[in-house]
Amino acid sequence: MTFCQKLRAIQKRNNSLLCIGLDTDIHKLPEFMFEYGDPVFEYNRRIIDATKDLVCAYKINMAFYEVRGESGWYTVHQTLARIPETIVRIADSKRTDIGNSSTQYAHLFMNDYEFDGITLPPYMGWDSIEPFVKRASQCGFILTLTSNPGSRDFQYLKVGTKPLYEKVVEKTRKWNAKKNLGLVVGATHPKELRRIRKFAPELPILIPGIGAQKGDLRSAVRYGCSTQGDLAIITVSRDILYASLDEHFARAARKKALWYREEINKYRKDFFG
Amino acid sequence: MTFCQKLRAIQKRNNSLLCIGLDTDIHKLPEFMFEYGDPVFEYNRRIIDATKDLVCAYKINMAFYEVRGESGWYTVHQTLARIPETIVRIADSKRTDIGNSSTQYAHLFMNDYEFDGITLPPYMGWDSIEPFVKRASQCGFILTLTSNPGSRDFQYLKVGTKPLYEKVVEKTRKWNAKKNLGLVVGATHPKELRRIRKFAPELPILIPGIGAQKGDLRSAVRYGCSTQGDLAIITVSRDILYASLDEHFARAARKKALWYREEINKYRKDFFG
Repeated sequence: MTFCQKLRAIQKRNNSLLCIGLDTDIHKLPEFMFEYGDPVFEYNRRIIDATKDLVCAYKINMAFYEVRGESGWYTVHQTLARIPETIVRIADSKRTDIGNSSTQYAHLFMNDYEFDGITLPPYMGWDSIEPFVKRASQCGFILTLTSNPGSRDFQYLKVGTKPLYEKVVEKTRKWNAKKNLGLVVGATHPKELRRIRKFAPELPILIPGIGAQKGDLRSAVRYGCSTQGDLAIITVSRDILYASLDEHFARAARKKALWYREEINKYRKDFFG
Repeated sequence: MTFCQKLRAIQKRNNSLLCIGLDTDIHKLPEFMFEYGDPVFEYNRRIIDATKDLVCAYKINMAFYEVRGESGWYTVHQTLARIPETIVRIADSKRTDIGNSSTQYAHLFMNDYEFDGITLPPYMGWDSIEPFVKRASQCGFILTLTSNPGSRDFQYLKVGTKPLYEKVVEKTRKWNAKKNLGLVVGATHPKELRRIRKFAPELPILIPGIGAQKGDLRSAVRYGCSTQGDLAIITVSRDILYASLDEHFARAARKKALWYREEINKYRKDFFG
């Protein structure tokens, strides 16, 4: 099964474009979680169990796990095992290197951990990306226009008449022989998302920046989707993960996730019928 | 002590611009190393002990350690502890993220492991870089023009009349209020290195690509150094690390490192007197 087949199947089955970002910060967890041997896993487990019928994907922000060393990696392993295999699992790891080093990272994320997708910075070019996308079932999401303020520093620079991020879209489409590449475009850039979707009607787009980063949900749906109203992966992290921090956090997360799914589907209906 | 003070002190003391890249691949080690509990550390230990009077820095390519999970991180820890503290220790980790996630990675590399320097991709801009360079004693080396073939995909794109990599130099200089930023420029691009050094006379430049990647050593010295013949960090990895793979590998590595140091110093004398 190709990556897009898996994505479309779960987007249909769960009627959802929502991806929950598991940016689980051990320092933010409520005290009672520390009764458990692995409080981060236990937190993730409850979030996953409470939301797995409402999402198309979970995105694991590696920064929050890697900082914990060995135990963080074990949490990643356990968390992945808890996610039903019909749901897309994305590593938000944002690293590439020269070919022989990228091969090492690719082995880690794509073979050992078997993520379905991974985020990759474009600056070092194709030979830094290629080791991650050997299999058609695994998607490389190329950082195109990121949700942070620093996206202004380089991504908008004009290359001829086009901004640099459009060059990233062009190259990504050119590299996409296996049809397993996608883009990352922050919901904080709605106008640009619209243009990007026009240039790349066929690519999955991972859209972070909703919630804590105040991206615009309506535009994310309207401009992020394919003409069939899918292939956008709309990511919400902190706003769902920390919807409440009392003992009912999983229930609060479910309520928030339900709200996001319905809101997204309302816009999908408006714009894609 | 600022980063450049530390760098200049060791470059003077060991009379060396050479940095050895510890890209130690467990699958390449000779069989007799596996008598040790941690063969990669044992290999690094012997390389370090045999070369520590010949180098200004060691660069740890995180890909080769992270792929081994927990035990890889332990090897990093042990390896760092073995390097004399007068020598610069660089994490080649090539990752940034949005602010709150970059803060996590920065904590890992700059607080927990206390590297003196780290490689950082520029694409996500200043707020992705800033968390790594809070202390004047620790240097962020911004990927400017990388040594791999994929460097042609984006880094040479013309922004107005200038290539993108020069924009990276411009921004890096602008961001350098703490005087703890540097650049990464592959030795495979000698002409461009020359231009970059002219634009940035004050920055340390990490120069990979010598040896296995066939970069030009003479140009790396001539164009990579400051007017005082220092601040270039010339990195050789595989060519020294695997100079031989028999029981005398450390002696062979020392011989190779000696050759590189002398060769570099010959060119320094030619060009900087």
